Amino acid sequence: MTLKEDAINLHRMLKGKIEIQNRVSLDNVFEDGKGTLGLIYTPGVAYVASEIGKNKELAYEYTSKWNNVAIVCDGTRVLGLGNVGPEAAIPVMEGKSVLFKTLGGINAIPLCIAARDKEEIIRFVKAIQPGFGAVNIEDIESPKVLEIVERLKDELDIPVFHDDQHGTAVITLAAVVNALRLVGKSLDAIKVVIAGAGSAGYGIFKILHQAGCRNIIVSDSKGAIYLGRSDVSSNKYRQEIAEKSNPGKVSGGIGDIVRGADLFIGVSGRGGIVSKEMVKTMNHDAIVFALSNPDPEILPSEALLGGARIVATGRSDFANQVNNAVVFPSVLRVLLDLRARYIDEDMLVAVAYAIASIVDSNHLNENFIIPKVNDPRILPVVTQTLKNAITEHLKSR
Amino acid sequence: MTLKEDAINLHRMLKGKIEIQNRVSLDNVFEDGKGTLGLIYTPGVAYVASEIGKNKELAYEYTSKWNNVAIVCDGTRVLGLGNVGPEAAIPVMEGKSVLFKTLGGINAIPLCIAARDKEEIIRFVKAIQPGFGAVNIEDIESPKVLEIVERLKDELDIPVFHDDQHGTAVITLAAVVNALRLVGKSLDAIKVVIAGAGSAGYGIFKILHQAGCRNIIVSDSKGAIYLGRSDVSSNKYRQEIAEKSNPGKVSGGIGDIVRGADLFIGVSGRGGIVSKEMVKTMNHDAIVFALSNPDPEILPSEALLGGARIVATGRSDFANQVNNAVVFPSVLRVLLDLRARYIDEDMLVAVAYAIASIVDSNHLNENFIIPKVNDPRILPVVTQTLKNAITEHLKSR
Repeated sequence: MTLKEDAINLHRMLKGKIEIQNRVSLDNVFEDGKGTLGLIYTPGVAYVASEIGKNKELAYEYTSKWNNVAIVCDGTRVLGLGNVGPEAAIPVMEGKSVLFKTLGGINAIPLCIAARDKEEIIRFVKAIQPGFGAVNIEDIESPKVLEIVERLKDELDIPVFHDDQHGTAVITLAAVVNALRLVGKSLDAIKVVIAGAGSAGYGIFKILHQAGCRNIIVSDSKGAIYLGRSDVSSNKYRQEIAEKSNPGKVSGGIGDIVRGADLFIGVSGRGGIVSKEMVKTMNHDAIVFALSNPDPEILPSEALLGGARIVATGRSDFANQVNNAVVFPSVLRVLLDLRARYIDEDMLVAVAYAIASIVDSNHLNENFIIPKVNDPRILPVVTQTLKNAITEHLKSR
Repeated sequence: MTLKEDAINLHRMLKGKIEIQNRVSLDNVFEDGKGTLGLIYTPGVAYVASEIGKNKELAYEYTSKWNNVAIVCDGTRVLGLGNVGPEAAIPVMEGKSVLFKTLGGINAIPLCIAARDKEEIIRFVKAIQPGFGAVNIEDIESPKVLEIVERLKDELDIPVFHDDQHGTAVITLAAVVNALRLVGKSLDAIKVVIAGAGSAGYGIFKILHQAGCRNIIVSDSKGAIYLGRSDVSSNKYRQEIAEKSNPGKVSGGIGDIVRGADLFIGVSGRGGIVSKEMVKTMNHDAIVFALSNPDPEILPSEALLGGARIVATGRSDFANQVNNAVVFPSVLRVLLDLRARYIDEDMLVAVAYAIASIVDSNHLNENFIIPKVNDPRILPVVTQTLKNAITEHLKSR
């Protein structure tokens, strides 16, 4: 059996990886006049509805709102498959929901929508807000999605998390921090090349910059992004990257810009674009994160042959899987529990360092720089970090 | 403890009456390289997504779409409470979801939305269509909701059910059919008065008319509706009622029009508007359905003192509860199983007769005209009825 056959057979058998379950005892529910039906539904529920009508914050106390996250996807950029439509996104979002439940205890409800217009998606998310404690935006094409997330951050009363951007950024920074511990370099001294300027590339660029990294070059399918490249200013996120990176205005392809780099991070969606020879031109103790799925920018064996000291991918079948599932269930769990209204860049950086710290010096090595997704220390560490960040923020106001 | 206290305490304890559960075994899910995580999520799920991308009908085979119903509510007409907002609607829709699961095995997902504009609600429902096998519209104010449902029936590829209209109509007709069996009158010979011209009143009027009843007078808060009443033509549903009912153009309040009626049906939302004296003016063997909740148009004890032979309410603490929960879980279950694209008026009438037939002559009496919501015969009977209706329809094309 191939992976494809296994996956399709499992999905055909399950007919859905998640379902709704009742949390209420149904003993005597239908008993005339005194069954619980009269409490959970009319007439009793009218009193509950009426109380919430007077104070809508009570929805957090009397309903599942406190634990509900909407996973919103328009199907325009599903995994590495591209624009395959909202129906095709459903099994992916159901899988994500399983992880949300298993690792965070969260009710994550996939909403794979037939709406592609930016304003319509923003309206959609604002419309569903009453029933949810947070929103996770997923697999929507860039740069549209970056604008959507920016707008929602301002316009929603509940936190919006964009896993492709924020989740990837946090786990990547955590992996970078630990890789640098191993090679004895510091974030403000290294040269970094990021291949890919979509949601993931933008998110990683932002978090590295926020964390103090200044020598970064980001490239997209047309090569290095630099201030003044003719097509850069038409996209505000590319323009932001250009303004804050590549001070030498270096141009060229990966082979040109990776020379002398300490760290390569690939989130290009294009497998095999980095060669062993390119890795050889990097600085000593090179770190290569080839994160594109299913085909990494370079296979770990090749990168190691090119002299890389630490290699990571997005895949579970190699060492050092840079896996968002370390981040999104715990972060959303804590945002819900703290009833946070938002998550900002400082908080993301703090969470990344906290996750990195879980790997202690006794265990840290070239093949183990990131905690496993089911490490029980993740949730307490993220909880304490976000609690502190929010307390600090409140103090500083 | 009062009902109010009981209801609020139960909701505070539960913090949500429904939740998401995994349908997939998590044994070894996180095992490196070979755990099921690689099947239910990336990389394996990409094959599933890709297949659905080529043929979106496969979403019914590989995801929970086949069993998902969206409960869409804007909070403008929640129970008898009116426009209390979408947050206040959540506990009601969660209760409904419990009934959908318990009685129909359906995943019913409450979407209580901050969107009140007709076109925006229509766009919203069309947007969520990819992930759902059917839609249930609930507790949206009339006549807006009637237009929304009419439009969605044309514009969706999945069935749209409007429980306030369709569910109430079906169970009411079933109750009427059995009440008439008892008193020995026939539907085409009786005089009917319906108090209330919202979703429920319109739905009941339509189904009685469809079933052959011709002598109907519908009243709203301004009295009897008749062709030519100055405010009737501004509302197309009121206009439709006027055109198909009250041929004598009778005007006046309930007291005037109920005189000589064989059947009174109250869905007015106004408790106590019918007096014992009014019931006395009805025809012999009068049938009184005072369905408004929590306060019926007349209490059963009063209606019986007025000479009514059969009395029904919407409440579980009196005999003959006219309860939509007999209808919506079974009808949606069957629509999903048959992958029906719509439900039409003939089908609704057929389901009503089928539900009525469950009460056999040995059990039928003045205090038992409707099957209990958990009667195990409901689902098979509704299944056979809708299967036949769809087969007939296909034959006639």
